[in-house]
Amino acid sequence: MEYENLIDRLIDLAIEEDIATGDVTTESIIPAHSRAVAEMKMKADGVISGLEVARRVYERFEKDIVWDAKVKDGDRVKRGDVILRIEASYRCLLLGERLSLNILQRMAGIATETARYVAELAGTHTQLLDTRKTAPGMRVLDKMAVKDGGGMNHRMGLYDMVMIKDNHIKVAGGITQAVNAVRAHIPAGMKIEVETTNLEEVREALATGADIIMLDNMDTASMAEAVKLIGGRAKTEASGNMSIPRLKEVAATGVDYISVGALTHSVTALDISMLIR
Amino acid sequence: MEYENLIDRLIDLAIEEDIATGDVTTESIIPAHSRAVAEMKMKADGVISGLEVARRVYERFEKDIVWDAKVKDGDRVKRGDVILRIEASYRCLLLGERLSLNILQRMAGIATETARYVAELAGTHTQLLDTRKTAPGMRVLDKMAVKDGGGMNHRMGLYDMVMIKDNHIKVAGGITQAVNAVRAHIPAGMKIEVETTNLEEVREALATGADIIMLDNMDTASMAEAVKLIGGRAKTEASGNMSIPRLKEVAATGVDYISVGALTHSVTALDISMLIR
Amino acid sequence: MEYENLIDRLIDLAIEEDIATGDVTTESIIPAHSRAVAEMKMKADGVISGLEVARRVYERFEKDIVWDAKVKDGDRVKRGDVILRIEASYRCLLLGERLSLNILQRMAGIATETARYVAELAGTHTQLLDTRKTAPGMRVLDKMAVKDGGGMNHRMGLYDMVMIKDNHIKVAGGITQAVNAVRAHIPAGMKIEVETTNLEEVREALATGADIIMLDNMDTASMAEAVKLIGGRAKTEASGNMSIPRLKEVAATGVDYISVGALTHSVTALDISMLIR
Amino acid sequence: MEYENLIDRLIDLAIEEDIATGDVTTESIIPAHSRAVAEMKMKADGVISGLEVARRVYERFEKDIVWDAKVKDGDRVKRGDVILRIEASYRCLLLGERLSLNILQRMAGIATETARYVAELAGTHTQLLDTRKTAPGMRVLDKMAVKDGGGMNHRMGLYDMVMIKDNHIKVAGGITQAVNAVRAHIPAGMKIEVETTNLEEVREALATGADIIMLDNMDTASMAEAVKLIGGRAKTEASGNMSIPRLKEVAATGVDYISVGALTHSVTALDISMLIR
Amino acid sequence: MEYENLIDRLIDLAIEEDIATGDVTTESIIPAHSRAVAEMKMKADGVISGLEVARRVYERFEKDIVWDAKVKDGDRVKRGDVILRIEASYRCLLLGERLSLNILQRMAGIATETARYVAELAGTHTQLLDTRKTAPGMRVLDKMAVKDGGGMNHRMGLYDMVMIKDNHIKVAGGITQAVNAVRAHIPAGMKIEVETTNLEEVREALATGADIIMLDNMDTASMAEAVKLIGGRAKTEASGNMSIPRLKEVAATGVDYISVGALTHSVTALDISMLIR
Amino acid sequence: MEYENLIDRLIDLAIEEDIATGDVTTESIIPAHSRAVAEMKMKADGVISGLEVARRVYERFEKDIVWDAKVKDGDRVKRGDVILRIEASYRCLLLGERLSLNILQRMAGIATETARYVAELAGTHTQLLDTRKTAPGMRVLDKMAVKDGGGMNHRMGLYDMVMIKDNHIKVAGGITQAVNAVRAHIPAGMKIEVETTNLEEVREALATGADIIMLDNMDTASMAEAVKLIGGRAKTEASGNMSIPRLKEVAATGVDYISVGALTHSVTALDISMLIR
Repeated sequence: MEYENLIDRLIDLAIEEDIATGDVTTESIIPAHSRAVAEMKMKADGVISGLEVARRVYERFEKDIVWDAKVKDGDRVKRGDVILRIEASYRCLLLGERLSLNILQRMAGIATETARYVAELAGTHTQLLDTRKTAPGMRVLDKMAVKDGGGMNHRMGLYDMVMIKDNHIKVAGGITQAVNAVRAHIPAGMKIEVETTNLEEVREALATGADIIMLDNMDTASMAEAVKLIGGRAKTEASGNMSIPRLKEVAATGVDYISVGALTHSVTALDISMLIR
Repeated sequence: MEYENLIDRLIDLAIEEDIATGDVTTESIIPAHSRAVAEMKMKADGVISGLEVARRVYERFEKDIVWDAKVKDGDRVKRGDVILRIEASYRCLLLGERLSLNILQRMAGIATETARYVAELAGTHTQLLDTRKTAPGMRVLDKMAVKDGGGMNHRMGLYDMVMIKDNHIKVAGGITQAVNAVRAHIPAGMKIEVETTNLEEVREALATGADIIMLDNMDTASMAEAVKLIGGRAKTEASGNMSIPRLKEVAATGVDYISVGALTHSVTALDISMLIR
Repeated sequence: MEYENLIDRLIDLAIEEDIATGDVTTESIIPAHSRAVAEMKMKADGVISGLEVARRVYERFEKDIVWDAKVKDGDRVKRGDVILRIEASYRCLLLGERLSLNILQRMAGIATETARYVAELAGTHTQLLDTRKTAPGMRVLDKMAVKDGGGMNHRMGLYDMVMIKDNHIKVAGGITQAVNAVRAHIPAGMKIEVETTNLEEVREALATGADIIMLDNMDTASMAEAVKLIGGRAKTEASGNMSIPRLKEVAATGVDYISVGALTHSVTALDISMLIR
Repeated sequence: MEYENLIDRLIDLAIEEDIATGDVTTESIIPAHSRAVAEMKMKADGVISGLEVARRVYERFEKDIVWDAKVKDGDRVKRGDVILRIEASYRCLLLGERLSLNILQRMAGIATETARYVAELAGTHTQLLDTRKTAPGMRVLDKMAVKDGGGMNHRMGLYDMVMIKDNHIKVAGGITQAVNAVRAHIPAGMKIEVETTNLEEVREALATGADIIMLDNMDTASMAEAVKLIGGRAKTEASGNMSIPRLKEVAATGVDYISVGALTHSVTALDISMLIR
Repeated sequence: MEYENLIDRLIDLAIEEDIATGDVTTESIIPAHSRAVAEMKMKADGVISGLEVARRVYERFEKDIVWDAKVKDGDRVKRGDVILRIEASYRCLLLGERLSLNILQRMAGIATETARYVAELAGTHTQLLDTRKTAPGMRVLDKMAVKDGGGMNHRMGLYDMVMIKDNHIKVAGGITQAVNAVRAHIPAGMKIEVETTNLEEVREALATGADIIMLDNMDTASMAEAVKLIGGRAKTEASGNMSIPRLKEVAATGVDYISVGALTHSVTALDISMLIR
Repeated sequence: MEYENLIDRLIDLAIEEDIATGDVTTESIIPAHSRAVAEMKMKADGVISGLEVARRVYERFEKDIVWDAKVKDGDRVKRGDVILRIEASYRCLLLGERLSLNILQRMAGIATETARYVAELAGTHTQLLDTRKTAPGMRVLDKMAVKDGGGMNHRMGLYDMVMIKDNHIKVAGGITQAVNAVRAHIPAGMKIEVETTNLEEVREALATGADIIMLDNMDTASMAEAVKLIGGRAKTEASGNMSIPRLKEVAATGVDYISVGALTHSVTALDISMLIR
């Protein structure tokens, strides 16, 4: 699993905030060595995501749990499906219940919504990208969920790709100057994306040899023209209020990517329940 | 600010996931000592929350920023309101832009939704409680936002209050046994809540001297009867699919608290933008 | 075990301060794979405490030690009793010897002294409470030892219960104002204690609905009167120079709790030795 | 200050265990910006210790406190003396009160008891040493207090000096073999001490060129003979139940050091109070 | 400064390993408040590097030092030049002396050697790249020094660029399969480099659309042919025993990059001294 | 292994800087459960060092690797020797390849060079010491390598031995004053070394009872005289530009130690390769 350190630190934090000094109720009542079986059941249709993360949570509490997943991350699931069976100490099952449901419900919520967007793009060559509009600390999980829903990840953060925006261009004195400034600075393996809002900017960005050109808040006609102008010499990304009804029309311009912030900034949990027997 | 350590670790994580080894674009283009002014503007009506957290984020990057908040957490704001003006180094403003917006938009989204629930309860003595159904790592921030929206916090986690649920009761052999088991274990300052699903359980819970009795997934009539039966000898909490249309009717039973998971498990971001001049 | 994180960090620190870069003597002389058996023997009568913590220390050094405790925390032991037999690598036994004895001797010292106080209260309904007067960093262990000696834990720290003291009352402008201020702030599961020094204050505290009323440095007659006045509507705690000779008389007033700082601020180690064969 | 990292981690832990998520009482009642003055007053005679550590605690909470110590660590103080005046925010004074008193009372307790032992050795050339029998995590503070009381520190832990004990000698096959084994292993700057229990062992230890020879649990006559035999070619340390009544007689043998475990394993707090005005 | 967290952790470690519990000599002798001035002087010609890192070290010890650098990282310096004047507490100057010299001498050694390679490439369009053959923990500093010497950084590590080597190709079943496998996995902003050892592999790599093609251990003639074949459709990197005598000839093939492991795996310190007045 | 904590933190850092968020290439191509065998082969003659550290690196990635070392640290090896065979998951082998080679090549480089110096001293009683001139963060590994090459370790850092240098002497007002100042401060187990540059200083240092006297930058004749003057009453260390051609002559003066900074400040990697089958 990539980004393990970030995932582990989020789990640390999530355990600390929920359990801290201990689960007083469970430790008082449930015997330390009593074992039990829990089942996770879907209460809605969707795409599951977060099983591997939930497993990581449970393995923190107990090394020798039996983890019997009936599906894997990215699978479509239906209301009523039992997706997972865990055998562990009774205490462990209770300790991890809320935390693992919080993870699964959010990630499955994101994957399910992503899949709706991706379905709209079926038959086009356009790929769906996520953004940096994620819940703080959840970047890696939110992006894993997007991938499970069939989307593609944009840059992880400010560090792993150049994205030249309006403020950078203003300060540098132009797109060309901005691209040159970063060229002298970045390692050999990093791509450059330039944000543009009109065709003139697209032309200038193209001339700099940028790897990706973002078409930000353009109308569909302008996007189509920009894509033609670029002619495959750079990748193109459509951005700005890309809701489902508009996706097909935008994809028809031939853009390589459409990026959607709402995938991760506004999430509806997918309902899942856990039953301990 | 309470829970500072948890907040700081979430900010650490959020900075790490977004910035990691550095903002390559900004560091290549924006001079280190150039200063600028940013404004945060509401793009929707609502209740603001997260300003103090966002400030904490910015103060990580730079000690001597000028932070000029026009409103404070918990205030109602309108589309178009400039809620905050920050003066800092240009680099710092860009570094913290996305992270602070991600925090503000989620917290304001929660506070705004909470306020809608609280408005429904106006004129009753019933208080709105949150739950542990928060985004992993976001517990403290999600609960701060609920408070800013006018709600009241339920327990922070498994550690700071006893909550005896069906599994505990089954293993202990009954409500009475469960309560006795925890009594021998907990420190002098901790309250006990018991989950009940019918009047018989309510009666048993009451007899144990529990501090709070949860009425879980009961119909309104049963809840009314339970509240009467308890007669103020314990606090009461209504729980289970408490959506806005049902709130008034439930509050009319006289319950002390209604708890709502959706406040924090399904959040719609409140739109806010940042402009650097 | 509750408070595991705090216990582990104390063990980290204790290992670091004692072993740091390594036990130069043992590493030079004792072969890495040589195994041995150690026995812990009581050199005085008392109540044992700290065995579970000592085990945790040893398991840090070596996963597969054989830990054969002949008694358990809270048991009465006699001079000459072998309380524990450990089989492990010879190096491991030597590495953990002083640290585990330092823990056991202090915790058994506290438990033994606590048991003397508790014995005085036999036949009354009054329970013995500890305080926050513990060695820095030892809070959790000191409080575990009190429990092993038969005492009950007061709040763990400033965070898990409200305790309104003279300074708070002065600033708030009275007991009533102080209680109201905290009520608006605390989560649903937290109790409130108010410190009082005379009957007038007791009356005011009672009227606020405080959960526990502390009778601080009162003479026995006043305490008796306060307990009668309160009449079970709140718990009562006697505090202030509660030495053994005075315990019975104070318990006779009917107070629910007596708290004693000396249990943990002045500790005499109980003598225990370790022999490696 | 030496060992800063260990001291800071103990303070971290002590703050965490006491304050954790925040002082709910104080934060609800005392305004954030209200300032006050606190005084620490002796309630018993003794030697003060721990002021520098207490200051470090307070500076954690607030950078700009006014710290006006009337005495310094190691000074003799009398009941009724005001030893310290602190000006800070009211909240800060309350937050640090118990923790700083817990530190001062323990450290002053150790320093005061140490001074009693040192007074017995006045006029002899023998120095008082401490041991590794300290409260877990408190090693550095306990040893600072011994120094403030006029004692001298023995090794800090297993890492900073060689101490060859009976188990090492048995495994190595003799004192000579044990010393040779460590000689091949240790860096150029580390001393070697050998534990002996009779004159034959003393002779062997001396022949190896050991820097210090411990005379463990010997009677006074044997010690005198050992000191004569060694004749200044190594330092000598008397160890084993060295209580105050026996000190003068042991010192008369001419040993260089007497080490006493009780200085730190059984501590009576020296009473100190704090008053906020 | 990028990669601040990694630099700070290396400094932490370097301080810990050198100073740990404190500088016993200096703390015993040099008064805490005595201030002094130190000068760093070159004892050899070269390119300076590491000044910003050394400053970071010193600012750890003391916030208000006066740091008066006479040159900046990347500047050429001559034997006898005073490159830096530091005013600080005398203790601070001594504490940081060895650590800062260890950093400066290694980094200046790398920068100086890099500059010798870069000078060989003057007048060609070929750029000098470093590798991952750095001292463990020194990656960031070693690469900063290469940049200061006029070189360009290759990928920082395994995470920030794809590098498909022989083992990957074997397992994937060919270059094409390997590139396709990574394409499905990586985010939008990451480049792909493929290692090739002959012209056939170069052709296959080119067909996959790889961003960079490594010509590994090829003779100069083959490299020339490969560069011609690629014709600017991908960047080219010459690798494998690229010593100074061979640089010009390789550059003449028109490769974009030459990478040299020896820059960082075998470093001769550049002599610099520090004098405290 | 001593200094485990420092070694582990260096490994943490080295993993973080190289792998960080994951090896994108390997994770995309190599199946998670595929296993393989790697061999490390010498490409030059020398003394091997770092095998135990490299093993520690690999055990971080995978618990159940088969580690089959054909030689042990400190052994002489020849070009062509297979020194190690590792069986593990294919991914693990690739993840640890560069990091373990970076460690082995540097440590073997140091050990090999140290052995050349030690060979020069054969037949004399003089021992070779290292210094604090190590790569930042590599202190422990660099010193382990010196030991593997047959050298002896000088002090680890500023904390574990007193070293009185010119600045200390100047501030103290003389060698005698400096030694007295540290005597009052250090624990019983720590040695004192004094740096001297002429015979007068040697005499004064000797009179203070210093344990080791450094003869710094003296000519050979003066060193011989100093050694005679000291007559075994303290250890002697020759220091300052001690290159191989001069070693024999210096050893002939009878000094106990010669210390050489170049062993660790200027290191040539010993060539080792890894082949995965």
